[in-house]
Amino acid sequence: MSDPLRLGIAGLGTVGVGVVRIIRQQAALLEARTGRKIIISAVSARSKGRDRGVSLSDYGWEDDPIALATRDDVDVFVELMGGEDGPAKAATEAALKAGKDVVTANKAMLAINGQALAELAEAEGRVIRYEAAVAGGIPVIKALMEGLAGNEITRVMGVMNGSCNYILTRMENSGKTYQEIFAEADGLGYLEADPQLDVGGIDAAHKLAILSAIAFGSKVDFDGIQLEGIERVSIEDIRAAADMGYKIKLLGVAQKTGRGLEQRMQPCLVPDTSPLGQLDGGTNMVVLEGDAVGQIVLRGAGAGEGPTASAVMADICDIARGVRGPVFGQPATSLATSKAAQSQLPAPYYLRMALVDKPGALAKIATVLGEAGVSIYRMRQYEHEDSSAPVLIVTHKTTHAALQDALSNMDSTCVMAGAPVALRIEEG
Amino acid sequence: MSDPLRLGIAGLGTVGVGVVRIIRQQAALLEARTGRKIIISAVSARSKGRDRGVSLSDYGWEDDPIALATRDDVDVFVELMGGEDGPAKAATEAALKAGKDVVTANKAMLAINGQALAELAEAEGRVIRYEAAVAGGIPVIKALMEGLAGNEITRVMGVMNGSCNYILTRMENSGKTYQEIFAEADGLGYLEADPQLDVGGIDAAHKLAILSAIAFGSKVDFDGIQLEGIERVSIEDIRAAADMGYKIKLLGVAQKTGRGLEQRMQPCLVPDTSPLGQLDGGTNMVVLEGDAVGQIVLRGAGAGEGPTASAVMADICDIARGVRGPVFGQPATSLATSKAAQSQLPAPYYLRMALVDKPGALAKIATVLGEAGVSIYRMRQYEHEDSSAPVLIVTHKTTHAALQDALSNMDSTCVMAGAPVALRIEEG
Repeated sequence: MSDPLRLGIAGLGTVGVGVVRIIRQQAALLEARTGRKIIISAVSARSKGRDRGVSLSDYGWEDDPIALATRDDVDVFVELMGGEDGPAKAATEAALKAGKDVVTANKAMLAINGQALAELAEAEGRVIRYEAAVAGGIPVIKALMEGLAGNEITRVMGVMNGSCNYILTRMENSGKTYQEIFAEADGLGYLEADPQLDVGGIDAAHKLAILSAIAFGSKVDFDGIQLEGIERVSIEDIRAAADMGYKIKLLGVAQKTGRGLEQRMQPCLVPDTSPLGQLDGGTNMVVLEGDAVGQIVLRGAGAGEGPTASAVMADICDIARGVRGPVFGQPATSLATSKAAQSQLPAPYYLRMALVDKPGALAKIATVLGEAGVSIYRMRQYEHEDSSAPVLIVTHKTTHAALQDALSNMDSTCVMAGAPVALRIEEG
Repeated sequence: MSDPLRLGIAGLGTVGVGVVRIIRQQAALLEARTGRKIIISAVSARSKGRDRGVSLSDYGWEDDPIALATRDDVDVFVELMGGEDGPAKAATEAALKAGKDVVTANKAMLAINGQALAELAEAEGRVIRYEAAVAGGIPVIKALMEGLAGNEITRVMGVMNGSCNYILTRMENSGKTYQEIFAEADGLGYLEADPQLDVGGIDAAHKLAILSAIAFGSKVDFDGIQLEGIERVSIEDIRAAADMGYKIKLLGVAQKTGRGLEQRMQPCLVPDTSPLGQLDGGTNMVVLEGDAVGQIVLRGAGAGEGPTASAVMADICDIARGVRGPVFGQPATSLATSKAAQSQLPAPYYLRMALVDKPGALAKIATVLGEAGVSIYRMRQYEHEDSSAPVLIVTHKTTHAALQDALSNMDSTCVMAGAPVALRIEEG
């Protein structure tokens, strides 16, 4: 039997408490599975006195996470404080420099500072593991980095923010507007303190940036993501999409193209019969595609005490078993700097527009689309509302550039009653 | 850079050729991801001369897999021959005794001889890895053993034989009988040389036995599985189930109960809106449930050259990176001998019966059910066919024992026109 693996846990919010609970309750199971005792040497959090529903009296206490990270009786620093820099990053760096391995759930820190931290860890011969940073309890980092290690990854997609998917699902089921459901979700405590992290797509984009670094062997590049949140998704679009057989999801997509790495996080339409289309509520789903394996779909809880703590424990158990390796699956110094590409790959698009009620209006729009090389796959015109006619169009596959051409030429036709809505359709 | 990892591959069918192809085509990627070159020293198969569409001239050849397994220039013996014993087992044992690690896709060998092989491997300080043995390209062994290592597993379920799911899906879509679709699938080459391995549920049960050993820390126990194939699933049941909102799947379920380990592989009804219910065609799905993580659903191709070779490569890459560990996640000598339990956990059941067309027939059946403690949740009686009336019943949760009581008492009511069909309903 090896020596115990000694943890220092910084951050005792929901996830931290979940990790403490598992270590206390499943000690025998963890020892059977890893061949070592897993023990907590000390913990750190903002407030020492607060009752967290779990006993901390067996563990040392540090007010300062850096002091915790560098304690002699800590082998693994478990960073559960959050924040892209500040104390989380400082303590992570201190831990690595002091020869500790790091387990973290901090997607923001890795998406923004992952490259520098990976280089530091690998120079120090330490590991950083972060299964909990992406899609909560779903072991997607492990599936992608290890389970599909024999594949050239062709595409990574996912619904990775449960709050956004909850809002979109509730809008569809209730027929209420974005503003109404946003207020409801906020009232229920489903949103981050800064809701923009959720509804602006930032949290999900952090996760996508991490997955694409692993998938494509490139430096994590959050700034290279085309990012659009769900704030402009209207109930009209949700209804119209449903009418055409689609659902609207905040979908992250990363794929390698001839021109670079394309990373998008934006509201997209997906077929309502696809696994992504059937994903309702707060659940997460990640779709991994590789040249050999084809498509793998992973689904599970993306947040919450148990699921996130489960992912943290997977990392701790791996370290206990002696599993080591580069932070992003390849040595950090060998990761490529990918050029960020702007949606070069053709896709079908959904267009919703209101046309003025004049003869020939639809013909003009069809002409503008045709002249830009955008061909129409399906079209529906609905009953007139007031003096304008709602029109839905699903295009054949077209490039983003051609579509933008068409959209900007529509203005000059003088038949548009308001700006058109254009959303990409991502096929299963 | 470490030394190359040197493979000896035995078996050059679809999967073996797929592995050779990946190693040839993705050499640079594999080296970047594992830090080592992965090379093939020698191969072995039944016929040396056969054109397999991939060049083997760079590799040594052995007619005898045991000679291959024990070659000095082989670090990892890759067993892709199949068969629960015979040459596969002999060569695996020889490899372990000669100090080689083993990667295999052989579910039958592990389900029947896994305990002995695990004990041998661990005594020799070697690993056996078998991601490809269960659910093809889905990295489910890794997800369960490593990704959910912090969980007490509460249930494992899955549709793990693509051929059976194809047959059931085709029956539903075409309205044709089992016999007709079986002949079609056989003609298309979708079935094993011995089709009983597929339609009898044996192949899927091998996989379930492996998953339950890992999930519950018990010795692999194929004989403890309650096994029933799909041969008796009728088109009438598929139609009636659909009418009540269910699909019929060949579903494997393993769970720990107070009385032992319950393992079942049998046709079950699942809600048609659940992930399992929406799984059409040859795809596989595994559902893992843990006390912390909740429910994780994994979906992907369960067979075929690329997906299965992808899983074999994951194991090879793990060994190249130095990942080691007990075969079933805990030391083989510490695995429990679980008592096989017969469906103690209550479940709802689907019953289809034909009653003779006499007043009071339905009342008699309802009385028999009530007396056995089985309560009716939903009931439908259809238009009479000939002189009998088809009746469908969905029960509330009941034990298998109570249901058997009721079924055996129905006989003596003299209102049954033929034997009733009873299928378990497994809830999402």
